[in-house]
Amino acid sequence: MSTFRKEHDFLGEKEIPNEVYYGIQTLRALENFHITGIPISKEPLFIKAFAQVKKAAALANMDCGVLKPAIAEAICKACDRIIAGEFLDQFVTDMIQGGAGTSVNMNANEVIANLGLEILGHKKGEYDFLHPNNHVNCSQSTNDAYPTAFRLALYNKIESFIKSLVALEQSFAKKSEEFAGVLKMGRTQLQDAVPMTLGAEFHGFSTTIKEDIQRLQEVKMLICEINMGATAIGTSINAPEGYPAIVTEHLREITGIPVVLAEDLIEATCDTGAYVQVSGVLKRSAIKISKICNDLRLLSSGPRAGLNEINLPKMQPGSSIMPGKVNPVIPEVVNQTAYYVIGTDVTITMAAEAGQLQLNVMEPVIAYSLFSSFTYLENACYTLQAKCVDGITANEEICKNMVMNSIGIVTSLNPILGYEESASIAKEALITGKSIHEITVLERRLITQEKWDEIFSIENLIHPKFINQ
Amino acid sequence: MSTFRKEHDFLGEKEIPNEVYYGIQTLRALENFHITGIPISKEPLFIKAFAQVKKAAALANMDCGVLKPAIAEAICKACDRIIAGEFLDQFVTDMIQGGAGTSVNMNANEVIANLGLEILGHKKGEYDFLHPNNHVNCSQSTNDAYPTAFRLALYNKIESFIKSLVALEQSFAKKSEEFAGVLKMGRTQLQDAVPMTLGAEFHGFSTTIKEDIQRLQEVKMLICEINMGATAIGTSINAPEGYPAIVTEHLREITGIPVVLAEDLIEATCDTGAYVQVSGVLKRSAIKISKICNDLRLLSSGPRAGLNEINLPKMQPGSSIMPGKVNPVIPEVVNQTAYYVIGTDVTITMAAEAGQLQLNVMEPVIAYSLFSSFTYLENACYTLQAKCVDGITANEEICKNMVMNSIGIVTSLNPILGYEESASIAKEALITGKSIHEITVLERRLITQEKWDEIFSIENLIHPKFINQ
Amino acid sequence: MSTFRKEHDFLGEKEIPNEVYYGIQTLRALENFHITGIPISKEPLFIKAFAQVKKAAALANMDCGVLKPAIAEAICKACDRIIAGEFLDQFVTDMIQGGAGTSVNMNANEVIANLGLEILGHKKGEYDFLHPNNHVNCSQSTNDAYPTAFRLALYNKIESFIKSLVALEQSFAKKSEEFAGVLKMGRTQLQDAVPMTLGAEFHGFSTTIKEDIQRLQEVKMLICEINMGATAIGTSINAPEGYPAIVTEHLREITGIPVVLAEDLIEATCDTGAYVQVSGVLKRSAIKISKICNDLRLLSSGPRAGLNEINLPKMQPGSSIMPGKVNPVIPEVVNQTAYYVIGTDVTITMAAEAGQLQLNVMEPVIAYSLFSSFTYLENACYTLQAKCVDGITANEEICKNMVMNSIGIVTSLNPILGYEESASIAKEALITGKSIHEITVLERRLITQEKWDEIFSIENLIHPKFINQ
Amino acid sequence: MSTFRKEHDFLGEKEIPNEVYYGIQTLRALENFHITGIPISKEPLFIKAFAQVKKAAALANMDCGVLKPAIAEAICKACDRIIAGEFLDQFVTDMIQGGAGTSVNMNANEVIANLGLEILGHKKGEYDFLHPNNHVNCSQSTNDAYPTAFRLALYNKIESFIKSLVALEQSFAKKSEEFAGVLKMGRTQLQDAVPMTLGAEFHGFSTTIKEDIQRLQEVKMLICEINMGATAIGTSINAPEGYPAIVTEHLREITGIPVVLAEDLIEATCDTGAYVQVSGVLKRSAIKISKICNDLRLLSSGPRAGLNEINLPKMQPGSSIMPGKVNPVIPEVVNQTAYYVIGTDVTITMAAEAGQLQLNVMEPVIAYSLFSSFTYLENACYTLQAKCVDGITANEEICKNMVMNSIGIVTSLNPILGYEESASIAKEALITGKSIHEITVLERRLITQEKWDEIFSIENLIHPKFINQ
Repeated sequence: MSTFRKEHDFLGEKEIPNEVYYGIQTLRALENFHITGIPISKEPLFIKAFAQVKKAAALANMDCGVLKPAIAEAICKACDRIIAGEFLDQFVTDMIQGGAGTSVNMNANEVIANLGLEILGHKKGEYDFLHPNNHVNCSQSTNDAYPTAFRLALYNKIESFIKSLVALEQSFAKKSEEFAGVLKMGRTQLQDAVPMTLGAEFHGFSTTIKEDIQRLQEVKMLICEINMGATAIGTSINAPEGYPAIVTEHLREITGIPVVLAEDLIEATCDTGAYVQVSGVLKRSAIKISKICNDLRLLSSGPRAGLNEINLPKMQPGSSIMPGKVNPVIPEVVNQTAYYVIGTDVTITMAAEAGQLQLNVMEPVIAYSLFSSFTYLENACYTLQAKCVDGITANEEICKNMVMNSIGIVTSLNPILGYEESASIAKEALITGKSIHEITVLERRLITQEKWDEIFSIENLIHPKFINQ
Repeated sequence: MSTFRKEHDFLGEKEIPNEVYYGIQTLRALENFHITGIPISKEPLFIKAFAQVKKAAALANMDCGVLKPAIAEAICKACDRIIAGEFLDQFVTDMIQGGAGTSVNMNANEVIANLGLEILGHKKGEYDFLHPNNHVNCSQSTNDAYPTAFRLALYNKIESFIKSLVALEQSFAKKSEEFAGVLKMGRTQLQDAVPMTLGAEFHGFSTTIKEDIQRLQEVKMLICEINMGATAIGTSINAPEGYPAIVTEHLREITGIPVVLAEDLIEATCDTGAYVQVSGVLKRSAIKISKICNDLRLLSSGPRAGLNEINLPKMQPGSSIMPGKVNPVIPEVVNQTAYYVIGTDVTITMAAEAGQLQLNVMEPVIAYSLFSSFTYLENACYTLQAKCVDGITANEEICKNMVMNSIGIVTSLNPILGYEESASIAKEALITGKSIHEITVLERRLITQEKWDEIFSIENLIHPKFINQ
Repeated sequence: MSTFRKEHDFLGEKEIPNEVYYGIQTLRALENFHITGIPISKEPLFIKAFAQVKKAAALANMDCGVLKPAIAEAICKACDRIIAGEFLDQFVTDMIQGGAGTSVNMNANEVIANLGLEILGHKKGEYDFLHPNNHVNCSQSTNDAYPTAFRLALYNKIESFIKSLVALEQSFAKKSEEFAGVLKMGRTQLQDAVPMTLGAEFHGFSTTIKEDIQRLQEVKMLICEINMGATAIGTSINAPEGYPAIVTEHLREITGIPVVLAEDLIEATCDTGAYVQVSGVLKRSAIKISKICNDLRLLSSGPRAGLNEINLPKMQPGSSIMPGKVNPVIPEVVNQTAYYVIGTDVTITMAAEAGQLQLNVMEPVIAYSLFSSFTYLENACYTLQAKCVDGITANEEICKNMVMNSIGIVTSLNPILGYEESASIAKEALITGKSIHEITVLERRLITQEKWDEIFSIENLIHPKFINQ
Repeated sequence: MSTFRKEHDFLGEKEIPNEVYYGIQTLRALENFHITGIPISKEPLFIKAFAQVKKAAALANMDCGVLKPAIAEAICKACDRIIAGEFLDQFVTDMIQGGAGTSVNMNANEVIANLGLEILGHKKGEYDFLHPNNHVNCSQSTNDAYPTAFRLALYNKIESFIKSLVALEQSFAKKSEEFAGVLKMGRTQLQDAVPMTLGAEFHGFSTTIKEDIQRLQEVKMLICEINMGATAIGTSINAPEGYPAIVTEHLREITGIPVVLAEDLIEATCDTGAYVQVSGVLKRSAIKISKICNDLRLLSSGPRAGLNEINLPKMQPGSSIMPGKVNPVIPEVVNQTAYYVIGTDVTITMAAEAGQLQLNVMEPVIAYSLFSSFTYLENACYTLQAKCVDGITANEEICKNMVMNSIGIVTSLNPILGYEESASIAKEALITGKSIHEITVLERRLITQEKWDEIFSIENLIHPKFINQ
């Protein structure tokens, strides 16, 4: 049976189960915010980042002489255990909360204080010895601690996401080599255009993801700007002299992330531009990956009444009625994940625009949106790579036949037969359904079979040479 | 050379070219708002609606004894000329303006006042005889006149848009009859499913648009709720007793639109829920029409390396390189128009959410968004109907061959051969590329050609009978 | 230690832990789809709806003579237990999946089959006696069972959400009575306008929510159109004669929901218009509630450097630095929830537009979006009602003083002093900072204190009478 | 009266009025696309960019020996005149068109050809001497010429937009100096926080825009990647050896824009990632500027029943009922413009995601969206700067009084009186409405007036010193 301790804040007193490490303010948040039912512990990188922020602050406060070494050390030890992944279940606040992150900050302050108290040989709740606000939150405000922790977590989310993109990019790159000799029709506007190789098509997928990795590397640096020491609104009220620079330096060492202190702390405290840009770049990736999945589904359509150029790995039966039907379930789930990400970009837009005066109070929903979108899309990328792209095979004959039966290849006869004759061949092909070869070589006998073979060699179709005569 | 008259308001005095009918406040708006460069005159239905509102107000004010008959009559005559389409070029305010519509309302008040002055034998600007505010705007505020005019215009835009949907729906319905006998493969998830007819597919397009027409008819009624007589914030300050009901009745008669007075004028004055819903329903149409266009582009893809089930009318050459390439330009332009509409729904969402306290000041951008989206999508629907759907032809043989060569038709053999045998046939077909007919009738000789013909008659494929044995 | 049974499908064989009720296809889905980490069991109404669909299908199949009574009864009993809330943990498929719902449908088919097998005295996996596809899914396809279950669940979600709106609406209505006598300044464009009462303002909140309840009741009926019996693509292939009508009737009885069969089953199977409209109406609610929360935050701003017209209940300390600071955390969390909902509307838009040909494969992300948005916003509404609105108090004196000190009240002197004199008073007030009373009664002595009291009685300010002289 | 010439393409023959420079394909586009009614000539930078592309191509073709010098020179001369701004009215294609830009490209090809013909002494339409496709479009495809011209125009739009941001940023910076000594309350979550200066607040506005300028400079470089020489799908079919590099070099010289050739031309031809990112950054600016305008409207609210900290320039009368009411019309119009921009980001998202296989056919609506959004927001920025920010004045006394009357300043007493005493003072102030000064100095006599003046000197409030005792 639970025993309880009493805690109070300026609104009153509450009973807290003795076994939990959080305190009265977290309990109030638990009671106040029941929206998603998803606790912040679902984002371990965020909890870890909070502990890193608190540790850096403790060290800086000690350096500045505003925290006694014994207390600072207790805080640091408590933080280290959280950084190591312990006590995750003590972070219970709902992902979407009011208060601009105060409840999350206090959840961290309280858990660290109670952990620190035990380390110091005290009981939980004996805040006279180590206080959530006075000590753990010393020289801080939610308004600097929260966005800083958010940014650290975001930095790591981006890094993690980039890894999934690298895996996907390499998978496409490998396939592009495998398919380098597979001749196929290129299509613009869903209409037959001119020949290309399946390898070049997959190389394009690889390239486009590689560019996104670059964009993510760039935007990762944008969120390294932090506002530690800004305290309430950026005036650094109640922060000791020199503290902002010192805490930033500690944080850089603890995290290995190249954080820098914002020059205009007033602006940095209310600005959410960096999140908007991160979301924009993430959305860009979602759009591109969705486009690729649309293409994969098109190219593997059929098997008889579709394009059928490639085969996706068969992951699960697709129908209870028709033997053998298998669906492109992996690209489908990736498309849907992309739509989720695109939706959250609008959520973030609204939240960013709604910030008023010296603080953007809507940051929690921005955090929730970015965290979930990065997680989902990372999962989707690994799924796409491992359960789809790696196992794609080409229907080489079908691809080649579509080129040879196409009307589009008449383009290559232009230099020899002239535009007029070529156009006349194309027109007949379209009306009669005959192949260009049939009309040109067999019927009209305009060129020999040898010449045909020369012009329409795979090599020449893949790397078209310019002939100007 | 222009001569000028002097006008003043409480901010000062300005020179107005003598030939123009608008006055000082419109001139200020012209100077203040240079955003889109598109004047409100581009929306004639809006200007007409404003004149109808002013006429109804004049009549109601006369009824209530607060406007002298001579003045009311001059206002009515002026309004009638504007309703008839005259003086459109006098409505010069930018489509996006600040002031919650005040500039548009004053533009109307000033033009009507100066027209009325001339009708009464006075000169423009002699506002002692007929004043833009005191007389034309009598018992009104921008906060009731503007949204009421907006709603009247919107009602007519919806009616006009519905007509284009009816044309499109009928075009699809006609084609569905024409294609009633064209057998083709149905596809789910871009994979071959079971047979259907092209007629049934086009009937689906017709049905889905018919449902949208119904939704638009419903939402049209929502915007018939007006707030005339609310004046400044809905307390009816400065409106004579009984005026709200009387002006509403006049407006109903003048417009033929079944407008009703809102019960809660405070709420009605600041609420933009009806616009949000109109935009939602319009977006629904955009989504559906875009989906149809995606399908039309897929079905007409090829001609050789695509599905090639249907032919869209050839509207323009599609390439300068390849003789004969023609693109599905009409569905393409419709898709893009749909994306425009979908974008404006987000604009409207932001504007609606940004309303504060007793008024939503963002209404002008809502009006601009809805007006342009209705216009563009109406244009797109007529274009789609006349320049694409009406001229679609079917490649009947290709459609039928895809069915006959499909593996999916093996489903129809289940009742006779059993699931196991059918599955084995399907598997062989997939691996060898042979047809179900070839394996079943010619090789395995499991059924006779006669039996095959019976099962796979067009009639039976189109209207599958349930066989349970 | 777990023991295993072997199950197979046409892609191979897998070992299933003996204690679980789901089978091989669910297991494949578990392996394939790891995106959100949120299982479909998080939406119990969806699971319940699936069991209702399966029960209705079993009964209809028995009526049509295609399922033996013993088997149908076993299925029904299994469904009844799921409907009662049992076995929720067996529904393990990720909320976002590929396959257009096939995995969710198969999850239900397999759990029901194995439950039914046990009811019949067999072991799990002995599908010869009761088969997930042949019996539980008899006369169905994912393409009709999935959207039907989705719609049933959605119907219930809407009903549940409406209840939260009713609670919120009544809370505002009650407050509007409480505040009926509180005089305050109305504001348009954040500028002082004319007086009103706080009661009228809260009545407006009540009215605007009442209208949304009406819209939700309407849209609830839209999603009652189902496509049971459509099977694969709407041609009713493999469904017995008469089955569609019979299963619909059974479903109506089982659920008490007035479901109707779609007339055009081809269209109904691929159309997602109803979801788009539901989302649009839900977004409308989100926008309105967000606007209300923006207003509540504005009106309670301060306490000294803001409007301070009302007090929100103090829910939690707002700052660790400043004694006494309390923030409007409840409206803040509601705003953020609204932004989430608005974001999902875009997700749904993209998913709806992406449907191709005979099926919209993106329905799972539509379901996830609508389910989570309804849940979150319902939670937010109850939170707003119980933890904020119910406890709001008015700062009556402050409200009244702002009216009396305002320049806006000069409007009421127009009829007595004339516009010119009133304007001159207003101008002096603006420049000097004096009150209208001070200038009019004490300095210029234009009216007596008695007359002043008459004109500016609370009664007259609240219900302004029209004076025309 | 118009005379006509006859032109033909492979779909037939049409009569073209003799006075126009465009030809048959442009005429078809005119007939096919009637959506917005806005011709591409509304974007002169786009037309200019097209002429630059055509000129560069002509020079490169001459270098490669595939165009005779005389013809190349005629093309160059024609392009030069268009670059100089002539013949803008000949660019008549609707802003939203199908065909992936083909109609715009052909519009340019035809106008340049006919101009070139006249320069060579021929008549319009005598295409044997100078052909729109064979000569003007030589070694090009719409698929490289169109996106390249789009990117050049976009580069210039961004540069132009940046200038407006610079103006706005400097305006805020200047005001921040002017207001450096104006003490005011900072607010978080609309609740009184701690003191700051109005100068610091405006400095924040300046900083946040400065950061956006940086982001725009970065993204400007992204769109310098072009795909000239890719021709149809990126295989460079029909382009002479070396042409891609040569034409890129010419284009760099002609435009002064540091364009670079994409490494993967296949990818570059279908990718729209750069546009998505440009739109994302533009949206970021829109969000920030909208947030600033929200703040300006809040800070200038009142004059009596609002915050009234600053005065915006009075631009136009705000009401016909209340003498003296003036609204913040400039920020309002800017907010609405921002919402427009945010909406177009969703349009662009949908269009980018809809690209299929080797080309994104939706590029025209992306172009229209970006062009209009950049134009509108640039107009809005200049409007905001010149008609609002430059003329803002501060109500210094009001600002200061709100600080002195605030409860928040009790924070500064913490170090001297301790947290408990301070909290007790704060509580009494909140309940009684008294000032902190009144309670502390006059009633409780806890500190002397001298000490009070020392602590609450403007200097100390503006630059709070950390006191740790």
